[in-house]
Amino acid sequence: MTPLYLDHASTTPVDPLVLKAMQPYFSKIYANPSSIHAAGQKAKEAVEEARWEIAKILHCLPEEIIFTNGGTESINLAIKGIAFQKKRGHIITSQIEHPAVLETCQYLETNGFKVTYLPVDKFGLASPAEVRKALRNDTVLISIMYANNEVGTIEPITEIGKIARQYLIPFHTDACQAGSLELNVEKLKVDLMTLNGSKIYGPKGVGILYKRKKILLEPLHHGGGQESGARSGTENVPGIIGFTKALELIQKERMKENKKIQQLRDYFITEVLTKIPDTFLNGHPTKRLPNNAHFSFAGVEAEAIVRHLSQKKIYVSSGSACSSQEIEISHVLKAIKAAHALGGVRFSLGKNTTKEELKGVIKVLKDVVGGLREV
Amino acid sequence: MTPLYLDHASTTPVDPLVLKAMQPYFSKIYANPSSIHAAGQKAKEAVEEARWEIAKILHCLPEEIIFTNGGTESINLAIKGIAFQKKRGHIITSQIEHPAVLETCQYLETNGFKVTYLPVDKFGLASPAEVRKALRNDTVLISIMYANNEVGTIEPITEIGKIARQYLIPFHTDACQAGSLELNVEKLKVDLMTLNGSKIYGPKGVGILYKRKKILLEPLHHGGGQESGARSGTENVPGIIGFTKALELIQKERMKENKKIQQLRDYFITEVLTKIPDTFLNGHPTKRLPNNAHFSFAGVEAEAIVRHLSQKKIYVSSGSACSSQEIEISHVLKAIKAAHALGGVRFSLGKNTTKEELKGVIKVLKDVVGGLREV
Repeated sequence: MTPLYLDHASTTPVDPLVLKAMQPYFSKIYANPSSIHAAGQKAKEAVEEARWEIAKILHCLPEEIIFTNGGTESINLAIKGIAFQKKRGHIITSQIEHPAVLETCQYLETNGFKVTYLPVDKFGLASPAEVRKALRNDTVLISIMYANNEVGTIEPITEIGKIARQYLIPFHTDACQAGSLELNVEKLKVDLMTLNGSKIYGPKGVGILYKRKKILLEPLHHGGGQESGARSGTENVPGIIGFTKALELIQKERMKENKKIQQLRDYFITEVLTKIPDTFLNGHPTKRLPNNAHFSFAGVEAEAIVRHLSQKKIYVSSGSACSSQEIEISHVLKAIKAAHALGGVRFSLGKNTTKEELKGVIKVLKDVVGGLREV
Repeated sequence: MTPLYLDHASTTPVDPLVLKAMQPYFSKIYANPSSIHAAGQKAKEAVEEARWEIAKILHCLPEEIIFTNGGTESINLAIKGIAFQKKRGHIITSQIEHPAVLETCQYLETNGFKVTYLPVDKFGLASPAEVRKALRNDTVLISIMYANNEVGTIEPITEIGKIARQYLIPFHTDACQAGSLELNVEKLKVDLMTLNGSKIYGPKGVGILYKRKKILLEPLHHGGGQESGARSGTENVPGIIGFTKALELIQKERMKENKKIQQLRDYFITEVLTKIPDTFLNGHPTKRLPNNAHFSFAGVEAEAIVRHLSQKKIYVSSGSACSSQEIEISHVLKAIKAAHALGGVRFSLGKNTTKEELKGVIKVLKDVVGGLREV
């Protein structure tokens, strides 16, 4: 059987067009963008053009784009950058954020900051009203994810953004899973937004932090003063070019592609729920990422399913995308109070996933779940 | 005229063998190393094999290698990692460190840390005796570079390492410029060592921090807990593979290659000093990087030379590798008290640089310097 990768929320392959765009920057246009000679300036122009392209997509200023190493760094820069700049204060986030947000907040708690971890409803939705209630005089940041990486729920970030603006509190959203959604920061009303390449068919090791101009951040990486001082370190030129191409590609076709993949996903969800008894969909029925299907199967450990499917060369995930190796019940499933102590299995479709492939998966999945239930 | 790049200390092109080694990891072996399925495990194996390879070269344990985004991040992680872990204390460094070290130390000073910036002699050498004298009861870290990025001076780090061990003070060295030198951490007696890919014909956006096992660091990037918790974020698998291949290549042939490039460099230095009057070599006459030649030309601004050479398609550097766009007299030239207030020009040879090319450069350089002196 041909391997079938349904773990696109963990990471995506690099699109051939992205790789093609990157190639000249490894060994031909390779100079340091900080060098004043013509070769350096050519590299710098490429980086600045990329920044323009991204700014057009995000509807922001080019200087509001900070290139980073990826989602985790961007999130750390956003949250610690605000916190260290303010020295003390209170942060509002949710219980279902990515570990990069949660661990960063917990670290800040050990440094004197106060953090409110808002609960979510059974679908994984954070409540704007709860955000408003949690506000304090010393609140310095709200950080709520755009879409959850496990169960795929899309959060009401525009509503939260409105509240943040009303009270003049900086609002960060982790949009790592939301690369195919609306990314207009004006519409979204976000002040800081994290995106990374490795979830949008771009390269690993590169991401951005959008930072509204007026927001002040203490840098995480001090040094040569690149990225207007917000993030020092020689620019990863091929990575930046690749990220930009990937973002352009995913955003250009997003309406059409999302519709297509959503139809496939809905077919898959319906088939799984009807063909495999005692199966539950986690996350929101409609406010969910177009490529995400996340199930709990009564009486069966999610991880066992993942391992058995892997033996059949079907690659899916239990736990979160980025820390699957730690075996414990997901904090997201705990937060949505899913009555499935044995975890959940995430199928995340890709842009090349076909209905035929999904048909095959359903068949294998039914056997695997059935077999495990018999044991 | 064919462009001639003599700015390898700023950054190097990616070696074709390195790029070839990276290629499969963009779109074929692309899964997230944290995923428990077979595709993820295959990526993880590649990362762990890379870690082994590097450990062999550095004579350390694989778990002592932390993959990062590059030199600046590694340096920040080493210095802030120790500082934040200790909460307070005193750091010893030198006046000629890379901005990533200096700016990080200055940032820590604003957070209550004390820093001694040791002077260097006229050749750019730090003094082990001065390091010993600077030690205090609350010294938590010594950070002295392996080789200077501007004038190329190789520092006596083994001697400094011996002192550090004697007093049980962690010792970090920024080895970004020293990829072709001895990297055996036991011989060097370092506890932390920074290397990056972009200076050793590897990819940009990837580096390592060697960290002796017993040393405790507070992470800079909190999140999924990758790199044994020292540095969260999805592993940049192609970057890691590329970095490793580049390090293998440069270390394998280093004795032979260094000798070859050093001969060329010495030819170049002698010719420049004899053919262009009132020219001075900066840095140490013998304890210098094999590919570094750094001159001041009396009466001529270094930056003007760089720009004129660039017009002739010869690419060299003034100022430091990574912040050339800031026009001010280099802190390194200030520290060595070079009597050349107009800066210096760095020629950094590459592994493919030829004697014929250097002959051409000498001719052009003589004309450029002569022309500028006439103005």
